[in-house]
Amino acid sequence: MEHTEHTVTAQAPQSVVWEVLTDIENYPNLFDATKSARVVERGDRHEIVRLEVDVSGQVQAWTTRRDLDPDLCVVAYRQLELAPIVAHMSGEWRALPCGPDRTQVVLTHDFAAKQEGADGKVAGQFTHAEAHEMLAGAVERNSTSHLQAVREEAERRAAQAKKSA
Amino acid sequence: MEHTEHTVTAQAPQSVVWEVLTDIENYPNLFDATKSARVVERGDRHEIVRLEVDVSGQVQAWTTRRDLDPDLCVVAYRQLELAPIVAHMSGEWRALPCGPDRTQVVLTHDFAAKQEGADGKVAGQFTHAEAHEMLAGAVERNSTSHLQAVREEAERRAAQAKKSA
Repeated sequence: MEHTEHTVTAQAPQSVVWEVLTDIENYPNLFDATKSARVVERGDRHEIVRLEVDVSGQVQAWTTRRDLDPDLCVVAYRQLELAPIVAHMSGEWRALPCGPDRTQVVLTHDFAAKQEGADGKVAGQFTHAEAHEMLAGAVERNSTSHLQAVREEAERRAAQAKKSA
Repeated sequence: MEHTEHTVTAQAPQSVVWEVLTDIENYPNLFDATKSARVVERGDRHEIVRLEVDVSGQVQAWTTRRDLDPDLCVVAYRQLELAPIVAHMSGEWRALPCGPDRTQVVLTHDFAAKQEGADGKVAGQFTHAEAHEMLAGAVERNSTSHLQAVREEAERRAAQAKKSA
């Protein structure tokens, strides 16, 4: 299992970043690759979401469970139904205050690619090393772009709130 | 100016990470490349430190000002006297709590390499692009290794405190 952490500073209050992170139905507007996000179950502190995501030009679908901790402002996510080359995918979104108008946005991933099947391949196509490489590359690219998108949206909302105050 | 942020999670209370970050005289024990750290001025919330650091096999010295914010647990550092290829180097160490026993340790850098001098070179040797590349590479490597060292030391101290409690 590989563990990665990426981060960015948003010039926005923690509450605004939290609002952006928990507004999952808005993810298709934030993240280019996310084509749709449909909540299929919502509890007091969790939600199960069906996502359609463009993975290198091919739309794939999977289901994610998100456990929300509004006290810490942490969303722990875990893919329930996995993309074809993925053996495990989970992690956390964290919005940690660093002063009243500044928030450290953190995105962590714990992931593993599938082992080769009976045909000696992952998803009929790749070696385990190739599948791992693809997955690690996607995690790296998505972490950077997703954090950037969350930062921009939080800063936009914070500026708007200031204007209308 | 380039801005980077790196982060790691320490399984240790914020206070323990803060203790590690502010114990600058211990940095030579934490960071392999840091040969010596001597405080030349210490105020209530700042310190000026003379560092000797092994940069790719060559020991270089510079002076850093560190402004300490114990409320936010942020150390803002800024090189006063610069290494040969560096035009600007500053950033922050942050220890942000994510629960009572978990701390997000963040290290940011804002940096720029020197422009070419009258001889068309940086430090008599490099183009600006080469100097930038070297500096960006050093920031990347040091960020990862320094965060790892701080995490290990904080977790060691936290485990020791638990044992003797």
